[in-house]
Amino acid sequence: MCRTDVHFAKNDWGNTAYPIVPGYEISGIVIKVGSNVSKFKVGERVGVGYVAASCLDCELCNSFQENYCDQMRPVYNSIHWDGTPTYGGYSTILVADHRYVVHIPENLPMDRATPLMGAGLTVYTAMKDSNLFESPGKHMAVIGLGGVGHMAIKFGKAFGHHVTVISTSPSKENDAKEKLGADVFISSTNLKHMQRNRRSLDFIIDTVSAKHSLGPYLELLKVNGIISIVGEPAQPIEVPATPLIYGKKVVRGSIIGSVKEIQEMMNFCGKHNVLCDIELVSTDKINEAFDRLAKNDVKFRFVLNVAGHQFSRL
Amino acid sequence: MCRTDVHFAKNDWGNTAYPIVPGYEISGIVIKVGSNVSKFKVGERVGVGYVAASCLDCELCNSFQENYCDQMRPVYNSIHWDGTPTYGGYSTILVADHRYVVHIPENLPMDRATPLMGAGLTVYTAMKDSNLFESPGKHMAVIGLGGVGHMAIKFGKAFGHHVTVISTSPSKENDAKEKLGADVFISSTNLKHMQRNRRSLDFIIDTVSAKHSLGPYLELLKVNGIISIVGEPAQPIEVPATPLIYGKKVVRGSIIGSVKEIQEMMNFCGKHNVLCDIELVSTDKINEAFDRLAKNDVKFRFVLNVAGHQFSRL
Repeated sequence: MCRTDVHFAKNDWGNTAYPIVPGYEISGIVIKVGSNVSKFKVGERVGVGYVAASCLDCELCNSFQENYCDQMRPVYNSIHWDGTPTYGGYSTILVADHRYVVHIPENLPMDRATPLMGAGLTVYTAMKDSNLFESPGKHMAVIGLGGVGHMAIKFGKAFGHHVTVISTSPSKENDAKEKLGADVFISSTNLKHMQRNRRSLDFIIDTVSAKHSLGPYLELLKVNGIISIVGEPAQPIEVPATPLIYGKKVVRGSIIGSVKEIQEMMNFCGKHNVLCDIELVSTDKINEAFDRLAKNDVKFRFVLNVAGHQFSRL
Repeated sequence: MCRTDVHFAKNDWGNTAYPIVPGYEISGIVIKVGSNVSKFKVGERVGVGYVAASCLDCELCNSFQENYCDQMRPVYNSIHWDGTPTYGGYSTILVADHRYVVHIPENLPMDRATPLMGAGLTVYTAMKDSNLFESPGKHMAVIGLGGVGHMAIKFGKAFGHHVTVISTSPSKENDAKEKLGADVFISSTNLKHMQRNRRSLDFIIDTVSAKHSLGPYLELLKVNGIISIVGEPAQPIEVPATPLIYGKKVVRGSIIGSVKEIQEMMNFCGKHNVLCDIELVSTDKINEAFDRLAKNDVKFRFVLNVAGHQFSRL
């Protein structure tokens, strides 16, 4: 369950086509396969993400970047190839095209693996595209400690980096360091602490969806450093030119990833046991979870237990 | 002569340490060399750029990025290693450390080669860092047609790209295409023309120093496209997240370049006859040129003829 689901459910953006079924981080068990599908078998554990369809014919689709295809159809609140609406994961059943489905490794519990399909993927691809994969020992930071941010700490540590969390809330220090394994916590309101860390970071991942300026963060980057934007504030992000140009710094954007990247990430998570920290929500508690989501009151992702499955905790 | 010179001369930024000698795009003839200098001989044509000194000891200095060194000292309005003020190029004589001096190829007229040291360099490094060098056939655009912008067209064509000029002034179309060789001109106020060019560009170089939003330009970039910022607006640049993230686009900054890059660029310009379009200014016309600079009334760079040399025109 992502805050995006709340916005669509409540038509906050004015573009909801009711009836909708939210949910773009989806896992389940295969109960039926099409006659031409050979990659999946009944009984297998699989995941479906944000993309339900794409044109399959453009340069982007042909280079494993179908999530950026101009004809990409999201998994809910969109229209599929056949003209029918797409319906998402808040459902006991889902029909998906096999080209947009991945395997979930056997050793990963499905509830904690599910948000990897969105929150995890967002971080994984952003970090990989900025050369943080198989290139350990960098100094990186995470701005914002929500569903996406907490996964940035986990992938940062799994990739072998020194991870700093930057937050406006000093109260998050304990979670960041003790629960999630961050090396350093910086309160962004502590200007002296920020100043001391000038030109110290190779990479920052910015998960903030509120209006903000990159000024203070650009100062933290080394020359050639990168800020990857994965949040989507409604108002433009402010980028002061001076710290950007006097340090040839880079601001880049990234959103989710391709099916190929999801499978790669899943395999990596299976091997390194990277999982999301979640709160499991039963279907009768959706509205309560929606209210808490709107207040960012979740550590760190709600997962809706549509099947009513009893998950064993290791 | 750059508008920066006007700002410093008039203390517009409040940090001018009078007396100053402006000028950071400098050329001249060697009249004396130090006893340990072997790279230069009396009588040679040389150039000096923005950097007068750097620490020579940091990671940046050791990797030919000394222009980003934390201890970098500009060629004027700064303090040199020995504690004396640095004085720039509006002068009949200049003392420069040999490590910050380059050779100017014999076939380039010195007046038209001089602004390569700043305006040319800014464009050359920004384009090279975004993989536009030795990678022809890309679609690129230039925003803003001033001293820096006009060099972006020239390097763009010399590098083998398809070059579009984007400007708020439709009156610049003729200069852009006929004089400077741009392939396409887009008036940024023509929304239909902008819309038709959605996702058409690999690279944009943004030379604008007025407040602006990157929103309309991000829309013009292909997925994975890059905007390189080389202007320095006083107010933050507005970067809407949506077109940035839904297209994993890149916004990067760049300022001037290293001595190694200046020499590389000079050699390239010598080989391909890339030169600036200039208006030569005699020393008694400096104030007039300053007034015109403040109004951007120059095609496309003033060069101060300190030596009173008679340049022959080919």
